[in-house]
Amino acid sequence: MADMVSIKEFIRTIPDFPRPGIMFRDVTTLFCESVPFGSTVAQLAEPFENLGIDKVAGIEARGFVVGGAVADRLGAGFVPIRKQGKLPGPRISQAYTLEYGEEIAEIHDDAVQADEKVLLLDDLLATGGTAEAALRLLERLGAEVVGCAFIVDLPDLGGRALLENLGMRVHCLCEFEGD
Amino acid sequence: MADMVSIKEFIRTIPDFPRPGIMFRDVTTLFCESVPFGSTVAQLAEPFENLGIDKVAGIEARGFVVGGAVADRLGAGFVPIRKQGKLPGPRISQAYTLEYGEEIAEIHDDAVQADEKVLLLDDLLATGGTAEAALRLLERLGAEVVGCAFIVDLPDLGGRALLENLGMRVHCLCEFEGD
Repeated sequence: MADMVSIKEFIRTIPDFPRPGIMFRDVTTLFCESVPFGSTVAQLAEPFENLGIDKVAGIEARGFVVGGAVADRLGAGFVPIRKQGKLPGPRISQAYTLEYGEEIAEIHDDAVQADEKVLLLDDLLATGGTAEAALRLLERLGAEVVGCAFIVDLPDLGGRALLENLGMRVHCLCEFEGD
Repeated sequence: MADMVSIKEFIRTIPDFPRPGIMFRDVTTLFCESVPFGSTVAQLAEPFENLGIDKVAGIEARGFVVGGAVADRLGAGFVPIRKQGKLPGPRISQAYTLEYGEEIAEIHDDAVQADEKVLLLDDLLATGGTAEAALRLLERLGAEVVGCAFIVDLPDLGGRALLENLGMRVHCLCEFEGD
């Protein structure tokens, strides 16, 4: 089933969200149909199926939707990476820069054990800033990050190149150019 | 596997989060271990497996983790119910009251079609205010809400009674009393 559905045609584009000039790639229209959603989860999981992934780390909030489902398919645990102040337990933080300011990503400090194999998941790869911060958090806890998977890649924004230059395996299901 | 793991023992309690006096039931310690996480997803999905569920609606943000995974297990689509301003497309809103003020929940107005069978999912049932608002949103779109499922019920806060009085089937995996 994984290759029978074109993911890209189910993604809706919303101009000027959340700010003027941004073409927002909205995956909720992909999520809400059963066959494309199941196919998305299957395609995200497929390259990592026999690698002994211990945990899937998902980035708040759309990364939680596919992260939970991919973790379940892989027989792995799920670890949330959240914005500052959302996680209740002892945690570590990593600042990163977005085009409109600084953000802080956090992870519980007991969420991953040393040498556990982790797959990082989010819906969309743009500049790679959030993914890089997530990667740093996981590596600071001693995880072996086996790869990153995204539904959408915006190659013009350079995130894929950034992550690959860090030695990371990057798996994306579709691209939108010109962003 | 579904009945071999005690869900409750994997849930961590964090006192005074997010405010003094709140005993926060933290499901991230349940999510991050593969067997309890898989068992949680299986137990949430089990009563709804042969009911022809079209879509699982998950409440931001922890409801996205289990919502995505349960949707995948049931062969259903996933619909996010989010806080105000987070959804990019045309949407409807529903205000509701929490003990510390008013909140607004939103859903895309094309996320559910009339008469589709929907399962509502979140991590925790407290007063039921958020779940009731989510239910209203789904019913305003014409959905047939088949039931609500939660990992944790806090029965002293009355959410289960509220939802059952609305005629809703409520499925919870464990309870914490005295909250």
